Amino acid sequence: MGLASETQKTEGWESIKALLGKMRTKVTEFPGKIKKLGQDDPRRIVHSLKVGLAITLVSLFYYFDPLYVGFGSSAMWAVLTVVVVFEFSVGATLGKGLNRGLATFLAGSLGFGAHHLATLPGEKFQPILLGFFVFLLATTVSFIRFFPRMKARYDYGLVIFILTFCLISVSGYRDEEVLELAHKRVSTILIGGFTALFVCIFICPVWAGDDLHNLAANNIEKLANFLEEFGDEYFKESKDRESNKASLQGYKSVLNSKQNEESLVNFARWEPRHGRFRFRHPWKQYQKIGSLTRHCAYRVEALNGYLNSDVKASLETRGKIKEACMKLSCESGKALKELASALRTMTQPPSQCPHIAKSKNAANSLKSLLKTGLCKDIDLQEIVAVATVASLLLDVLSCTERISESVHEIASLARFKSLEDDKVADGAKINQKGQVNNKPCSNSIEQPNHHVITID
Amino acid sequence: MGLASETQKTEGWESIKALLGKMRTKVTEFPGKIKKLGQDDPRRIVHSLKVGLAITLVSLFYYFDPLYVGFGSSAMWAVLTVVVVFEFSVGATLGKGLNRGLATFLAGSLGFGAHHLATLPGEKFQPILLGFFVFLLATTVSFIRFFPRMKARYDYGLVIFILTFCLISVSGYRDEEVLELAHKRVSTILIGGFTALFVCIFICPVWAGDDLHNLAANNIEKLANFLEEFGDEYFKESKDRESNKASLQGYKSVLNSKQNEESLVNFARWEPRHGRFRFRHPWKQYQKIGSLTRHCAYRVEALNGYLNSDVKASLETRGKIKEACMKLSCESGKALKELASALRTMTQPPSQCPHIAKSKNAANSLKSLLKTGLCKDIDLQEIVAVATVASLLLDVLSCTERISESVHEIASLARFKSLEDDKVADGAKINQKGQVNNKPCSNSIEQPNHHVITID
Repeated sequence: MGLASETQKTEGWESIKALLGKMRTKVTEFPGKIKKLGQDDPRRIVHSLKVGLAITLVSLFYYFDPLYVGFGSSAMWAVLTVVVVFEFSVGATLGKGLNRGLATFLAGSLGFGAHHLATLPGEKFQPILLGFFVFLLATTVSFIRFFPRMKARYDYGLVIFILTFCLISVSGYRDEEVLELAHKRVSTILIGGFTALFVCIFICPVWAGDDLHNLAANNIEKLANFLEEFGDEYFKESKDRESNKASLQGYKSVLNSKQNEESLVNFARWEPRHGRFRFRHPWKQYQKIGSLTRHCAYRVEALNGYLNSDVKASLETRGKIKEACMKLSCESGKALKELASALRTMTQPPSQCPHIAKSKNAANSLKSLLKTGLCKDIDLQEIVAVATVASLLLDVLSCTERISESVHEIASLARFKSLEDDKVADGAKINQKGQVNNKPCSNSIEQPNHHVITID
Repeated sequence: MGLASETQKTEGWESIKALLGKMRTKVTEFPGKIKKLGQDDPRRIVHSLKVGLAITLVSLFYYFDPLYVGFGSSAMWAVLTVVVVFEFSVGATLGKGLNRGLATFLAGSLGFGAHHLATLPGEKFQPILLGFFVFLLATTVSFIRFFPRMKARYDYGLVIFILTFCLISVSGYRDEEVLELAHKRVSTILIGGFTALFVCIFICPVWAGDDLHNLAANNIEKLANFLEEFGDEYFKESKDRESNKASLQGYKSVLNSKQNEESLVNFARWEPRHGRFRFRHPWKQYQKIGSLTRHCAYRVEALNGYLNSDVKASLETRGKIKEACMKLSCESGKALKELASALRTMTQPPSQCPHIAKSKNAANSLKSLLKTGLCKDIDLQEIVAVATVASLLLDVLSCTERISESVHEIASLARFKSLEDDKVADGAKINQKGQVNNKPCSNSIEQPNHHVITID
């Protein structure tokens, strides 16, 4: 018994010690985490400072008598508005601000109407009528929030609509000076909203449109990076192909990018023209590009499975299609990279991409190889893995073509500047701008390839 | 000129007419949309009614003198809290409520402290000090909101923390009775929060945990449905294989389920024990299951590409591996279906799943077929597509095994009831519960299969 309680004590002591140790490591890791968070995106630090600034600005109301006299304790609505409305990107802030402003105004007017309507049948029925109105409106608007379209763009506005309607119509029952109060409230909300918007837009603004644009280009580029390196990695001669190279894993984030993309599109649509983006920039097109990019990423994910797969073909088998596969993969990667760079710099991509043409050639030679050159006496199971890789690469090529189409589409929708225009103006610059990172796919392969292209 | 303006006029008229037509169709479609929204998930209607009820309840404060006397215009904070805190699921409401409550309390205390600290050096410096405190706190907390972990669970609390701190410390500068005001505010917020929670939990509650649990089971089942039908669809003899059967497209929603799953996990972790879920149910394990399910879904997506692919092998080529492929696909599907049903009913899945065993047999025979039986004199290109399908199916099998492992893990973590226990109690019931939809994979194939299994 004594021994048991002793053991329990030591066990308890041990677990406390373990807990303390855990906490200590967490505390010591904390500064590193903060630093990393800031380094990953320095705009986060700027954003935090901006929030502090906006709130401090708006709280000046309280400190200066001439300002305070006008609004009294309604000044708190200005602080509240800034805290609630201020978001990371301009689009999100504008969206929330407009939602809040419009909803407050509409619901306020409706609340007054309800208040007056409720007074008509006499004082006895007033609470009942008011309660009925509140119930009806809250129920209806809550249901409307489930519409996917409303949810995406007006969710916040609908909440504020319920809120304001209830506050105005219900507190109107008690407050005689409800009109004056509402007036003050609206003005302070406007002041808060404008302060937030001003700080958000004019001090180091973060545009959701920029983020969306970069996300689309980055995602395509991540796939391109994988494809450019895939060939080397898959046909590497050394046996330990356990490769988890960072550059080969970058595409993983593309797989789950949908939600982020959607919210960025919704934010971007609130934004006025800025930088390179005109008003009514075709933001929706980014969703199309994104969905095609993810489609391609699913294929890449399957390809990645074969990098570390147990079923590996012999070097001999792999060797037979090595050339064509490497060419296909690398050129598809290059084509994607060029599309990404065209998107990023907002220049018209060339109507006939040389890399896609080269990939198609490689694809043809791969197909003809598969037709004739591969399988005679070796067992098929070995080829299957290689054949699958080949087939997936062919898939990737067709994905690439579709991505290319969608980028061309946005280029014409958003009137990207064409390289030809630039060419006339300045021939030298183009090579730097349009053709990024354009060293040819491993020279050794370049040469002997052109004798295969003839078939089909 | 006159003609041109005439044309313009008609064009303008046409576009107005088109717009009106569009609006009319939208208006006429609206009731149908509402109906569909309600039918898809009737809980939405109930939720809307609950919101209406909670707000009406809390606005009673205004109508009854005895209630109103105590709180005065602070009663509006009760309404505000209900509107803002009331969410669809219990977990979300609890999370928001606790966040709001705790943040209000902590920030309130801190605000008082700051207020008192600022009065120490004299009235002149008070605004400066207060402004400095507000700036410091708002900046710090805004930055903390970027930590992914804080964002997931405490984002709302952090916003309310900034809000309350600013309101208390700043309005304390003007308001002499700030303590009394704060006290009233806290009580009304508590009342609002409890009303929201009460209505949310005790009237037709929607548990995020249930939704998460069903989502996991449904996603596995969607893959299972695809796999069960894939074989029939791929090896169909008729040439028009343009199949967009709904049952074959169900898996698409699995691909992008990550975000939804994550937020459900975060909500579920706030929920108390309910229904079949104990306190500290291993909610995190669902994320693991989900990520494996998505992993499998990527393979299925690639498989789906081959259903409508241009490159089709001849019937003869396909015929050779038809049996084994159909068996493999169908049995994998059945195995997944059993796992889904075990998860759904929270029963221990059998430690040796017969369907996985059968799939493994089919996989072995498929491998040996690929080794010997397939390729002799037909051209390889034709086989490639088939070989890819076979290889993807083999991949799917290994995904299935990993999903099975993760389901076994949650079964032991959450102590699912074991079927063996039931067996003793009641032998008859099990067949109905444990083995759903268990007609064997096309009988014709069942028979001739066992002679192939011998190899490897």
